[in-house]
Amino acid sequence: MLKDIQSLSTAAYRKESGLFLAEGPKVVQELMQTAPGSIEAVYATERWQPGMQHPALQRISEAELGRISSQKTPAGVVAVVRQFPSSAPEVSGITLYLDAVQDPGNLGTIIRIADWFGVKSIVCSRGCADAYNPKTVQSTMGSISRVNAYDDHEETWLRNQTSPVYAAALSGKPVHSFGKLAGAVLVIGNESRGIRDEFLSLATDRITVEKQGEAESLNAAVATGILLSHLTPGPSPP
Amino acid sequence: MLKDIQSLSTAAYRKESGLFLAEGPKVVQELMQTAPGSIEAVYATERWQPGMQHPALQRISEAELGRISSQKTPAGVVAVVRQFPSSAPEVSGITLYLDAVQDPGNLGTIIRIADWFGVKSIVCSRGCADAYNPKTVQSTMGSISRVNAYDDHEETWLRNQTSPVYAAALSGKPVHSFGKLAGAVLVIGNESRGIRDEFLSLATDRITVEKQGEAESLNAAVATGILLSHLTPGPSPP
Repeated sequence: MLKDIQSLSTAAYRKESGLFLAEGPKVVQELMQTAPGSIEAVYATERWQPGMQHPALQRISEAELGRISSQKTPAGVVAVVRQFPSSAPEVSGITLYLDAVQDPGNLGTIIRIADWFGVKSIVCSRGCADAYNPKTVQSTMGSISRVNAYDDHEETWLRNQTSPVYAAALSGKPVHSFGKLAGAVLVIGNESRGIRDEFLSLATDRITVEKQGEAESLNAAVATGILLSHLTPGPSPP
Repeated sequence: MLKDIQSLSTAAYRKESGLFLAEGPKVVQELMQTAPGSIEAVYATERWQPGMQHPALQRISEAELGRISSQKTPAGVVAVVRQFPSSAPEVSGITLYLDAVQDPGNLGTIIRIADWFGVKSIVCSRGCADAYNPKTVQSTMGSISRVNAYDDHEETWLRNQTSPVYAAALSGKPVHSFGKLAGAVLVIGNESRGIRDEFLSLATDRITVEKQGEAESLNAAVATGILLSHLTPGPSPP
């Protein structure tokens, strides 16, 4: 069993098994609360919540935890979790399309940002990090259970859209000049090369977070957060 | 010499020597362009820019690079760089105050964001990550040479300000309801516990990025980017 868990550090075995690893107290607790039915097993050392009893909980040694964890200094608990269903989304509100966002931390942070701004779905092109990479899961802080992260390996999804498509780009119109978007796709590009021409050519408009200083670019997740804060409608009245 | 470089992975030796390590082609190239006078030495394998000649460049083996790099899979080049001067800033435009932002990646990303939005100075409380931690430097993408990152170990700076102080908090007024800020301090809190009460009590107002979905919080760097995009004046007219 511990050997199977180690295999969950590879994308291929995650795909085959439909499972993933969640590591560390924060993410594991969040998932135990929000998606208890998806937890297959929880492996923890004696130090993690010593009094806790849970049908899925198994106590293991520090050495065993070290072997199954993907982290250099494992933080006491690892859970094996069933992957959440995902499907090709219908566009409503804003749907994100990620063109090869390849850093797992960036992808996870974008999933968390989407969950903050009420964005229900993210479509990932070929070349994106795996939504169930342990680093991605860690960065989502539990939002992985609430956002539909759809894997568009065929790269057909964006081409088949009839909704307006907006591209986040360094050379576009200032985000301040746009109103709120509804029923639209926002495309975020790769960390180094931005959005591929074939996707840029599908865009109705290009949107820019205007530079006022000297930095060459913004981190992809930070840019996504800024754009969504300007383009989403804001909280509904109570 | 290689032994001294290894020691630069510790904060204590960085402080003593006034030097830091920059790792990987992107950051090293950016610093060689923007701050050539600060580069003490560049260590690269034969694979990094094979034709390049530079007085500070020394070719080393992969094995030697592995010993001086802080990364698991070093990316061909490491530079030893002299730290940039920093000083207690006078508030102008927006000055950031970081209350124990402890993740080096977050601190580096915030320095890069500041540089994008024309924020000249960041003041770091006790408990912040070291601005010259290799992971911080990596995340700044070169902006470390342009932003005044002042280390406020005594934690006296904020208390001595007469400018208005705004606190980024989950329970504040929506950022949309604020105009542009000038001559103000924006305080960003620790990743887990937010801003300490003693600093919160100095704030004129609390500012919130309004939540529209389910995530518990936003990443500290993402929140900083969103707030600055709303509160900075925008690019000056050409």
